[in-house]
This record gives sequence, structure tokens and C-alpha cells, in this order.
Amino acid sequence: MNIVENPSPETWADLLARPAKDLTQLQDGVSKIMQTVQKGGDADLRKYTKKYDGVALESILVDPEEIARSGQTLSEELKKAIQLAKANIEAFHRAQITEPRVVETMPGVRCWRKQVGIDRVGLYVPGGSAPLFSSVLMLAVPAVLAGCREIVLCTPPQADGKVHDAILYACSLCGLTQVAAIGGAQAIAALTFGTESVPKVDKIFGPGNAYVTVAKQLAQLEGVAIDMPAGPSEVLVCADEGADPQFMAADLLSQAEHGPDSQVVFVGRTRTHTKSVVAAVHEQLATLPRRDAAAQSIANSTAVVMPDDKAAAELINAYAPEHLIIARRDALAFSERIRNAGSVFLGYLTAESMGDYASGTNHTLPTNGYARQYSGVSLDSFCRQMTFQEVDEQGLKGLGPAVMAMARAEGLEAHAVAVEKRLEEVFEGLTNIDAKLAKS
Amino acid sequence: MNIVENPSPETWADLLARPAKDLTQLQDGVSKIMQTVQKGGDADLRKYTKKYDGVALESILVDPEEIARSGQTLSEELKKAIQLAKANIEAFHRAQITEPRVVETMPGVRCWRKQVGIDRVGLYVPGGSAPLFSSVLMLAVPAVLAGCREIVLCTPPQADGKVHDAILYACSLCGLTQVAAIGGAQAIAALTFGTESVPKVDKIFGPGNAYVTVAKQLAQLEGVAIDMPAGPSEVLVCADEGADPQFMAADLLSQAEHGPDSQVVFVGRTRTHTKSVVAAVHEQLATLPRRDAAAQSIANSTAVVMPDDKAAAELINAYAPEHLIIARRDALAFSERIRNAGSVFLGYLTAESMGDYASGTNHTLPTNGYARQYSGVSLDSFCRQMTFQEVDEQGLKGLGPAVMAMARAEGLEAHAVAVEKRLEEVFEGLTNIDAKLAKS
Repeated sequence: MNIVENPSPETWADLLARPAKDLTQLQDGVSKIMQTVQKGGDADLRKYTKKYDGVALESILVDPEEIARSGQTLSEELKKAIQLAKANIEAFHRAQITEPRVVETMPGVRCWRKQVGIDRVGLYVPGGSAPLFSSVLMLAVPAVLAGCREIVLCTPPQADGKVHDAILYACSLCGLTQVAAIGGAQAIAALTFGTESVPKVDKIFGPGNAYVTVAKQLAQLEGVAIDMPAGPSEVLVCADEGADPQFMAADLLSQAEHGPDSQVVFVGRTRTHTKSVVAAVHEQLATLPRRDAAAQSIANSTAVVMPDDKAAAELINAYAPEHLIIARRDALAFSERIRNAGSVFLGYLTAESMGDYASGTNHTLPTNGYARQYSGVSLDSFCRQMTFQEVDEQGLKGLGPAVMAMARAEGLEAHAVAVEKRLEEVFEGLTNIDAKLAKS
Repeated sequence: MNIVENPSPETWADLLARPAKDLTQLQDGVSKIMQTVQKGGDADLRKYTKKYDGVALESILVDPEEIARSGQTLSEELKKAIQLAKANIEAFHRAQITEPRVVETMPGVRCWRKQVGIDRVGLYVPGGSAPLFSSVLMLAVPAVLAGCREIVLCTPPQADGKVHDAILYACSLCGLTQVAAIGGAQAIAALTFGTESVPKVDKIFGPGNAYVTVAKQLAQLEGVAIDMPAGPSEVLVCADEGADPQFMAADLLSQAEHGPDSQVVFVGRTRTHTKSVVAAVHEQLATLPRRDAAAQSIANSTAVVMPDDKAAAELINAYAPEHLIIARRDALAFSERIRNAGSVFLGYLTAESMGDYASGTNHTLPTNGYARQYSGVSLDSFCRQMTFQEVDEQGLKGLGPAVMAMARAEGLEAHAVAVEKRLEEVFEGLTNIDAKLAKS
């Protein structure tokens, strides 16, 4: 982990360049999987699952009874932890429910928005060496709160053909009943087109490897929405001298252990403190089970010494980190300078892990600099806002002439006529709808 | 306009199929324009503007003085109308500003979201036979309210090389100072990569023709976000017998006049009333200046007779119209059945034109069935929501053990260590930061 002091703004982009990965060469292969599943349905899902996961699936959908009894094999400690995490995530996302608020923009013109859950959503939870039940909670809790009518979760099967009980337990806690033991591009294809077992959805959520990412991009071309573009995870830790170097090192490593392409950045205020943090990183690294992956990530990572707060904040805004830890005494005040970050962790005690699992915020966040444009997943991601307007006679009289003038200036005569005909009737007093209905 | 009675749900998709347009064949051409502008900057912007707009631009950016004096050539009536529209749009979008709301998900764990404007946004306003100043208002008003730091608007020049004064007047009212007289795919390329005159942006908004749409798709692959996928405009009018057939016809035609690929659908309750509406459509059509375009659109359009409210609502939800007019006495009650629509116009008097221009709602809406997944443009579109969390000693003690249990169950040891180190310190009472700082 090399240390750079006071880099000038022109050098920031190169200094903090993310490990670039060109996924375009995967497109043809993924596109073929997508097309095959579109035509072949369940049969091809099974073939790909045999090929890539080495598993001959009996049933693509997990038996609901298996979901219901999944808690039996888990420790009470883990179940309690998952329950606590779910309660916090639910509390935070429930506060994002909005009620329509009518704005009378002028007399007789009432406008409002209404939050509505997306009908059909697909949740993807990656496989890998461990069961990522936390991602189930982060996607299923807001989907259920949003009132999505159909929620289907896909996750690759383990070597024994089963889905891990910890994942099923999280599903069952959230009330999910449709869980498909499929992963990779073929799972995204199934959600995009629908198969005999897997329903087609309107929007697909969740992280995944490069194949899943490309499949989600291709799904967009088929009219399916996705949560956000995905990339390797990253953290920027920004600290003052009061931050314990051991804490900072642990935070940096908790990101680095995700894999060799994870990026970690440290921004300190003094060279001495920064060196202590880097030393602690190397010291702790040796003890980690995932030290090989973490070491590769750390080798590509940078520590920056920036004594000037304003410059440090602008470096952070330019980088736009997915996770930003502000381990400073003045964390909240410093955070006022930050515009571009996915999720922010304030103070010496707020480890990123807290938010990764259980503080209540969502851990599905924009990576790869996308925090400049995208928000993390929230209740909003599972909803749309429909707008409504209602114009009465007073509103028509007050606003109608302006609308006609604008429509005609834009050369849209029929737009003007639609208002004019109503204005004529209103001014002639012929709007007694009850009388009309009685006559009709 | 053919009339269909009580179609069964299996036939809805075919009956209401949108005029499909395959844009993939445009990709190579648009991609070439994008690459050329990426390398050649302003010089190539000028070349394309000469080629496609027939104009040799003196300056790509409009002189700010020209923006400032644009009102001089407009009628007072039009200026007042634009001002009224702006005031209503601003009132509605201002109500979408959210303040951080702290949720204490458990004792000592505080989480909140903060709405932050996207740094740099590009607004595209199409050219054509008339100046679409209303689109300027719909994009610039929320961009300014969101606090976007850099706002650049692109719109194609007229034959005389100028931007229409009505567009510049709307820009000036909103306080925009960066207006580029460029259009088409080359404008999207400029916003995507930046040129000497046009700044690179983080997100691109606004409607456009097929080339602009494809360019926006390609911009996404370059890390730029877009507002939503675009398609031809559409309206579904759903009415009871109290709705004046002349009003209904005018509403259908105000959509049809947008162009031959616009789609209009009428859903009536009785055959007699529906036939009156269709007759009125043909009667009014003859008088319209844009009757050729409107006639083509109407020829491809369908009127459906659906006496059953529940079935009618499900047909509407399946179609997911961009604009939905509910011209019924029980409009608000009926609207409770609607889940999928962009913007909804309630009652006999609320013409779609009211919302197109001036009620206050945004007219940039999801077309092509995307109302199933996407919201229209709102203040949210110009903002991100950053999440924050702050955990104190109590929170760490309460939540830390659960986080450690989950991290270890997911095989992420460093995630557990980041919490464990803090817990150890807290339990040993060594968190006196002031003392530490004094020592350092």
C-alpha cells in the first residue's frame, strides 16, 4: 500500500483509478445463454446449472416446506442476529414509505404523487464460498415493504444441489415463497423472459459476478429495469489522528477481503498517522483466513496524506466511493462537504461492517464511481411514483388560457383545443354532470 | 380507429401492441458519431451540425446576453403563460425536497438519508417544427431546485443558426447560462465525453428522436446515467358516459398530433358512448393543422368497450400507459385500482394538455410500457440519496455481537474483526478520544 502526500487534483484520477475490467468480451457468450433460456425455458436452465454449478436439479423452485423448516439447522445465535438485522433494516426502510401529499399549485389545480410498488421483481443473491443471507435481507425487506406483488429470488445451488439454510431462513423471515436454485447469467435470463418455473419480472436487483452484470445489462435491452450497474466493492476511509490505526486497518481489510479487485483507499491527515495505519494493515493481514485475496487488493491500494480538509473532501467527491468511513472527531461536520458517496459511516466506532449487515441502511450501493449519479437500493428502488392531477372549474379558468397560449406557441393545436372545448363549456355553464348522466 | 368489445385478457397484449421500432440498426451509425466527437470535440460538433442541421455555427454556446434579452421578441401573453407554468412546476417539485430524517433503528444506532443534487447534468430539448420551451421548464426547474452545480442544455439550432427565443426565455427564467446550439447524437456525445465548449456531465435527461435515444443508450455504457428509456408518446383515455365525447376526442387527438407513431387508446363503458367518441375524433381530425400525422396515429389506434371496472383497470395496468386520463365521475375511486401509469389526469375537466404544460407535474414520463418499472422525471431524478449511519458505544455493544456472528457465518472474518477490535476497546474503557488526541 503506497503512501502519497498531497497529490494535486490533476493526478487524482490516475492515482485512484479503479481496476478497470472490460466486460464487453463476455457479451456474446452471455447473450447466447440468454437466448437459449428464452427459447428452451426450464430444460436449458437445468442444462446450464449442470454445466456451471455441477448440479442436476430435481426441482428449480425450492420446496416451500424446505424454506419453512430452514431455521432448524442454524444456531440460535445466528438466527437472533439475522432477526435483529432484519428488524433494523425494516425500521430504516419503513421510514421511506411516503404518503401522497397534495400540492395545490394554484387555485383549483391539485397535484400529487403516489408511491406504488413495482408488480414483479426478481432478486439475485450470488453464490460463492459462503451463503450471503445478508443480501437476501437487503433486497427482500424493501421489496416486501413496497408491496411488490410477485417476488422471486434466484441464487445458485450448493454442490449438494440445495440452497443454504441460512439463505432460506432469511427468505422465510421475509415471507418469500418463490426461491429458484439457479444462478449466473441463466438466472437473469429466466427472470427476463420467464420460464415454466420462474416468472418473468419487471425489474431485477442484486449483485453478482461479471456474467451476472453483463446479463443484467442485456436484460435492460429487453425492457427489464435493473437496480444499478455493478462493479467490485470499495471503501474510502478518511481519518484524523484520533482514529485508532488498528480500527482503520480492520476497516480497510474488511473491504479488501472481498477479493483481489476490491479497492481500498485511506485518506489521512498526517504522514505519521497514515504510516501507522498502513503498518497495522500489514500486521493484521497476516492473520486473516482470506489473506491471499486481501493481499492482492491491498497491493493495488493507496494511502493519501491530505492535511487540508477542503482538498480531502474534494478528492473524496472526485472518487465517489461506494462506502465512505469518516473516522474523525468532527465526522458530521466534515460530512457536510461530501456530495458523492454511496453510504457514509460516521465516527470512530462505526465500522463499515455495521452497515453491511445490520445498522439498517442498505448495503446494495453504487460502485465504480457511480455514486456520482446513482443512489443505493432503497424502498424507492422497488416503487414508482405516479403523478396525479385534478383540475376543477376554477383551475381550468385560471390555467386554461396559459396552456392554450403555450400549446399554440409550440404548434400543437389539438393540445389547445382539448382545453378550449372545456373552457367553452365551463363558461357556458354546461358542466352539470349529474344532469347529463340523467339524460344519457 | 377500430372498436373492440370486451376483449379477453389473453388478447390484450396483441390488441394494444405498441408500434415496435427496432433501433439496433442505428447503433453503428450513432456509435461512429459518438466516437468522432469524443476525439474531435468542438470541430466535429460543428461538422455534424453543418451536415444534419445545415448550419455553420459561429459559437457552440449561446451568448449569455442573447439568453438575457430573449424575452424581447415574445408576446406578453406567452411570457406570462411561461411564468405561470414555471411557478406551478416549481411549487410541485419543491414539495419533493426531503430533509434528512434520523431513524434510531436500535438504541445507539442512528441512520438517515440525505438528498443531494447530482453535480453535473445535461438537459436535451429536441428541435423540430416548434420550440419546445415546455421541456426546458420540465427539466431545468427540478435541476435548479436539486442544486445541481453544473447544468448544460443542448438543443438543435434553427435554420438561421439561432436557438428560438422562447427556449432561451425559458432558460433565462430558470437561470440557465450554459446553452449549446447542438442537437442529435452529437449533442449526447458532447455531454458524454465533454468538448472544449460543452462540459461532460454525470447524467443526461430529456426526450429526443431515435438517434438521440440510441445515443443515450450508448452513453450509459460510458458511465453516464440517463433519465429513462424513451419511446413515442401515448395516452389511454378511460371514460364513463358522463364524459363529453368532444372532450375525449380532443384528448385523443392531442396525443395523436405528436406523430404517426404516437399511440392512443380509448376505454369506454358502453358501445354507444365509445362510438360517439370515435365519431368525434374523425370530425375534429379534419380541422387540425397536423391532421396528416394525427390521422396515421389514429388509424393504428383502438377503442375498447369494457363495462366491467375491474377488467378495465387490469387492462390499463397491463398496458401501463404514459398518460392516463380517467374521465369518470368516480375518477379518484377508480384510480385506486391503477398501479401502472406515468401520470394520471382525473375527472372530466383535466385535459392532458394541462399537465403537459402547466399543472405542475412533470411531462417527462415513461413510455412504451416502462410505467411498470420507471417513474417520470421528478426532483428525485436530479438527486441521489446518500445513506448515513452513526453508531455510539451503546449501539456498538447492542449490535456488534450480531454483526460479528453474521460476518463469520458469511466467512468474512475481517468484517468481524473490524467490530471486534472496537468492542474490545469499548469494553476496556479506552475510548477517551480527547486524551488520545492530547497524546498524539
